[in-house]
This record gives sequence, C-alpha cells and structure tokens, in this order.
Amino acid sequence: MKRFIFSLIVVATIAGIVMLIVPAPGHADGQPTAPFVTEIPDGYRDWKWISSAHEAGNLNSLGAVLGNDIAIDAYRKGKLPFPDGTIIAALHYHYVPSEENNKVFGQAQSFVPGAPTNIQFMVKDSTKYAATGGWGFAHFQDGKPGDPTFMKTCFPCHEKAKGSDLVFTRYAP
Amino acid sequence: MKRFIFSLIVVATIAGIVMLIVPAPGHADGQPTAPFVTEIPDGYRDWKWISSAHEAGNLNSLGAVLGNDIAIDAYRKGKLPFPDGTIIAALHYHYVPSEENNKVFGQAQSFVPGAPTNIQFMVKDSTKYAATGGWGFAHFQDGKPGDPTFMKTCFPCHEKAKGSDLVFTRYAP
Repeated sequence: MKRFIFSLIVVATIAGIVMLIVPAPGHADGQPTAPFVTEIPDGYRDWKWISSAHEAGNLNSLGAVLGNDIAIDAYRKGKLPFPDGTIIAALHYHYVPSEENNKVFGQAQSFVPGAPTNIQFMVKDSTKYAATGGWGFAHFQDGKPGDPTFMKTCFPCHEKAKGSDLVFTRYAP
Repeated sequence: MKRFIFSLIVVATIAGIVMLIVPAPGHADGQPTAPFVTEIPDGYRDWKWISSAHEAGNLNSLGAVLGNDIAIDAYRKGKLPFPDGTIIAALHYHYVPSEENNKVFGQAQSFVPGAPTNIQFMVKDSTKYAATGGWGFAHFQDGKPGDPTFMKTCFPCHEKAKGSDLVFTRYAP
C-alpha cells in the first residue's frame, strides 16, 4: 500500500513538472491557444515616447505610443525584428477639441486627448508567441482585458505590417 | 602708475563679477531683455510623455508634449505654479496621412507625425524669467533658435492660460 501511494505521488509530481515545462496545448479544434496578454505591464506610463497618432473615422482616437527600454533601443538602432522583451504600449483617448485652447486661438484648431478609451500592448516573446509572429497582444478597457473574440482580430491585421515586424508605428525623431 | 594699473584691474574684475551676478539689463527702450532660451535642453527626447496634440488650421501639426522629472511630478501631483526647474518640451511635426497604415485599413484614417517642424520649450525659473511669469520660452527649427520678433509672441499668448500657470497642455492619464 505504501509503495502504491508513493508511486501515485511520483506520477503526480512528474505530471506536474510536465505541465510546467510543456507549452499550453492547443484547443480541441486544433487552433493554438490564443496569445493574449492579460496583465497590464508595470510602469508603462513612465516609458519613453515613440510617436503620436490620430486615428480618424469611427475610432476618432488621439494617443501616444510608448516603449520600454528594449523597444526604444531597437527603434533607435533600427533593429528588426524587435528583440524578445520588447513591449510597445498604445494609449488611446477620444479625439476632442480643447475648448480652453480654442478660446485663446479664436477658432477650433486645437484637438487633444479626451477621456481614455483603451490601452493596447504588443509583447515580444518569440517562443511563447511563436504562433503569432512572436508577438502577444493585449487590450484593456477600464483595466479589463478584451474578450477573446475581439482579441482574435489583432494578429491578422498586424500581420499585414510584415516589413516592420508587425508593428505599424514608426519612431518620431 | 602701478597703483593705477592695479586699480584698473580691480575695477575691471568687480565689473566682471557684477556682470556675472546681475541679471542682463533692459534694452535702451526700457523693455526687459527678452526671456528667450537659446540652448536646447539636454536629453529632452528621453523625457516622459505628458500628452499629444493635433493643431489643425494653418499649423496642421501633430506632436507630443514631454516633461522632465520635475514637470512630470508637478503634473501628477497637481502642483501649481510649476516649480523652478520644470521644463516642458513640445515636439511638432507635420500632420500627414500614413500611406502604409491606410492601405491596411482600406481608407484614409491614420494620421501620423511627418517631417519635424519645430521643438519648443518652456523653462521655469521664477527669478530669471520674472518678467514673463517665471517662464523662459524657446523655439528651435533645424536646431536654430527663433528670431526675437517671433519669440516676442510666446508670452502674450501663454499669459492667457493664467489658471494653469501659463501652460496650455493638460496631463493625459
């Protein structure tokens, strides 16, 4: 009996180790597990500025793209593909006129970030996110991650920017 | 004769010291010397992001406002007036459509920074720049400071933002 219990413990331990070292398996439909990042990276609001962007149309968003030190170094040196550890953050806000600035200018010419809409991240890990070009994608609205259906739209669109390692944003000098 | 030369040296030395410690005198017309900053502050491109802005109209500029650590701390704590040592940088670029992004989106919706147009700074030193609300103003185009006639337009416009210590830009959360 003792030997049987010992064997059970050994089997359970090995199984546990195997679960820790083997990548998460695919879904039953054969698709790889969705490579979504569900934790907001620490300290992103202190990262350096890469560029700004205005997305007109339905989004009508004004924001900034920031990068951690690995991202900034890669951008400045023109390193492609981006190295593992790169994290790029896109901070989005409603694109709104600044009433107070426009009063000074005497016309509606100043547009600034209004209420935040969402924060998105691209996290480079060429092993963990091999199935999606080495990038894990993240989207947070009010601190909550995007739902899986929405998140599945990230990679197919970013994949079109193959010439710049799936990253749309250029570094502003 | 020796004593006369010695006296001359003393007078010249004292005059030199006085020139170093006394603020630059006013022009002959009685106006204070224009408080223009003519050196680009070191390391500004590494500063933290305060906000982005699109100035439409004739300027048609897209850019970012960055701050040194004193500026960022003041913004986050809501400190007004900004303390001495604050430097705020405004990086301006032509507001241009991104051809490559718009190809992916299938419509002209993405606007990004094009060629740089100018960099502007506000430097807080309540003693040195007392005549202009404690702020020294700077404007650089291709690395060269703006001409005095142009620079005289900074303060009268910024003075209209008295409620926020002459600073137009709000911190984007």
